[in-house]
Amino acid sequence: MSTDDLGNSMIFPIGEKFESDHFTGTVWLKMLTPSDSACPIANVTFEPECRNNWHQHPGGQVLLVTAGRGYYQEWGKPARELHAGDIVTIGADVKHWHGAARDSRLVHLAIQVDPGKGPVTWLEPVSDEDYNKLK
Amino acid sequence: MSTDDLGNSMIFPIGEKFESDHFTGTVWLKMLTPSDSACPIANVTFEPECRNNWHQHPGGQVLLVTAGRGYYQEWGKPARELHAGDIVTIGADVKHWHGAARDSRLVHLAIQVDPGKGPVTWLEPVSDEDYNKLK
Repeated sequence: MSTDDLGNSMIFPIGEKFESDHFTGTVWLKMLTPSDSACPIANVTFEPECRNNWHQHPGGQVLLVTAGRGYYQEWGKPARELHAGDIVTIGADVKHWHGAARDSRLVHLAIQVDPGKGPVTWLEPVSDEDYNKLK
Repeated sequence: MSTDDLGNSMIFPIGEKFESDHFTGTVWLKMLTPSDSACPIANVTFEPECRNNWHQHPGGQVLLVTAGRGYYQEWGKPARELHAGDIVTIGADVKHWHGAARDSRLVHLAIQVDPGKGPVTWLEPVSDEDYNKLK
């Protein structure tokens, strides 16, 4: 994948394409620290239109957006548009999704909080109907 | 402070000058998440020649370098040179310091691991003699 359009904001390695039933579209993943460590950190690159399913983290999560444009949405609330420099603090068990805009990649660091509380619970996809309402 | 020489790698806010007896030189700090949260994250910008004292974290720390050049050193080991994209995983109670090179700023995210284990323990400064041996 070319990352020319993201300039030198691609600070951390993009990793490999991540095959998962819990994503719609193409996503790239690089673990920056081990997934079984006390502070698992992933660098996640969503291609345009890519997003993850609704999901919940038992200990919460923090997203640090480093490049591109996309969205974060909590269940029952309007989507929040994301840009480089944005911080998203996700509470324990809060149902949410995140992903790219239709016309841009989104790159963020994803930090799992309190990983000892257990793994993510994956839920239903974000429907095309709901996603396509976003600008 | 001008950040022109760091280009758009200054993704997160630089914050304010941080007055501390535990640093040599000038450092800027912005907490990206609250210091009393389950995952405290700071954006730290060291001006050239600035470094922190030797110190230890009871739960460990992860550094994600986003810009500039600097060093990380553990007690009894050679210093490791740091550049954008480098990851430093610091174990619990490991005595270490980090900071900028003499001719460059260093910008990193600092993530406190297992903050419930307690606050940092600050120790002695890195002497000019030891620091000036670094290239």
